This record gives sequence, structure tokens and C-alpha cells, in this order.
Amino acid sequence: MEAEPCVPPGFRFHPTEEELVGYYLTRKISSQKFDLDVITDIDLYRMEPWDIQGKCKLGYEERNEWYFFSHKDKKYPTGTRTNRATTAGFWKATGRDKAVLSKNRVIGMRKTLVFYKGRAPNGNKTDWIMHEYRLQTSENGPPQASLIIIL
Amino acid sequence: MEAEPCVPPGFRFHPTEEELVGYYLTRKISSQKFDLDVITDIDLYRMEPWDIQGKCKLGYEERNEWYFFSHKDKKYPTGTRTNRATTAGFWKATGRDKAVLSKNRVIGMRKTLVFYKGRAPNGNKTDWIMHEYRLQTSENGPPQASLIIIL
Repeated sequence: MEAEPCVPPGFRFHPTEEELVGYYLTRKISSQKFDLDVITDIDLYRMEPWDIQGKCKLGYEERNEWYFFSHKDKKYPTGTRTNRATTAGFWKATGRDKAVLSKNRVIGMRKTLVFYKGRAPNGNKTDWIMHEYRLQTSENGPPQASLIIIL
Repeated sequence: MEAEPCVPPGFRFHPTEEELVGYYLTRKISSQKFDLDVITDIDLYRMEPWDIQGKCKLGYEERNEWYFFSHKDKKYPTGTRTNRATTAGFWKATGRDKAVLSKNRVIGMRKTLVFYKGRAPNGNKTDWIMHEYRLQTSENGPPQASLIIIL
């Protein structure tokens, strides 16, 4: 675990969903630079959840959330289903997607996924949870970055 | 309320007691500069608690703690009792002082005080609470800065 990069002591990365989508994901997708490289890129579906946290740039002992950018892979080039399987298991969506608002306007959506060990449609549910944020326009658009929180 | 000065979006000032005493208060007392002017100086006993929060540099809507530096006034030049009265009331210590540790070493002490409206020994207790941090060496030394959190 590293120290907070270039932020004075006492500051913690506790972003709101509005900041995650409206600032971090929006800038990432439009390829704008960040003053501080806070959120790492990972290829989420080539990693198991228990291996991911070591890749996180922001680390504290008390930390129990990890933030990443991930590009979506399409399972089939012409399909819209995204490949959510890893070697050891798969991520499965749970519940409904939730809107992320900014000034009463929907700027993005949050999907919650749970990790199962094994192969769909079987598999054993684990305690690993992911929040995947996408911009509001991105559902039917080309593959683009998502912002991922592993809980 | 102002935005966070010069810190990227998503960062919040949630310092540990070790950071408050070991970094902020220590640097303040030794007159070292801060990269970011996070904590404001106030004359705590010339202000009522409800007027203080407007002086705080760090403000968020969800905020419910305010951080300040304050110099201690001696009530009597030769005494050791500090003057904790304001115009409308007074701050009264409650409970025992608590040690602030860094790597198992005591680096400072925390005193908790409650604000009463009126004049001691009477007065009506309010919900305003203060944590006052001093360096471990400062109890019998000359007046110096304390770090104050208003809750």
C-alpha cells in the first residue's frame, strides 16, 4: 500500500457518485488529463477480485473500497452482452441499475454486480461486490471506460 | 462555504488524531509552513460556537466538523487556568483527557469541552462540543496554539 500521492496529510479519497461520474469518468472518456493520477486502469476480467486490490494506487489500512477504470470487452463483436467472466468465476448483475444525478439531471448509471466462483449458470456467491458506473449515453454506444468500485 | 482549496475532486479532509497532532499542530507550533492552508486561526473565546463555522476554510454541505487553530489566553498572567468564557457562555471540560498516540508513543492530549450558555457555575448545556488538542509537552509550558474541532 502506498501513501496518498501529493495530497496533504488528512485528506482521504471519499468521492461522491456525482464526482466519480461527472468528473473522473467524464474526463477519462474524453481523454482529458488528471492533475493527480488517482484511479488506475485495470483489465477487470483478466483478474480475480482478490488480486485486484494490490493494483490500487490509493491505499490506507482502513480502506475497504478500491477504485479503477476498466474498458468493457464485448463477448461477441456484434453483440451487446459484455464478457464478465474471469478464470475463477464471473460477475453477475444484481438488482436494478441506479441513476447518478447532478443538479437533478441523470449523468450516469450505476450497476451492482456480485462475484460468483465457478461457471454460470451455477457458481457460488461470494462477498465481493462491484459498482460499475457508466455515462448516461454509453449503454448502446461503443465500448468505453467504466469506473469500477470493488467493495 | 468554499470548495476544497487545491485538492482534486473527491478528496475530503478526514484527518486522524495522529495526523492532527503529529503533523498539523506540530508544524503550527514550530511555525513551519503548510503546503495548503487547510486550518484557519481563530480567537476562539471571542466567538460564539454558532458564529465559528462561517470562518472555516473547508466547507462541504455534509460537513459537521470544523477545524481551527487557537492560541490559549491565560485568564490571569501568573495562573494556569485558561479563560474559556465567551460573551454568551463558556466552554467546560468534560471527562478525562485522552492520549493521542503515534507508534505507541504519546504525542498529544485531547480534551473534550461542552458549551454552556450563561455564566459559570450555572448555565445551560448545549449540543456544541469541542475537541482541543495540545502537544504532550504543552500543559505547563507557555501559551501556545491548540487545534480545535467543533462538532
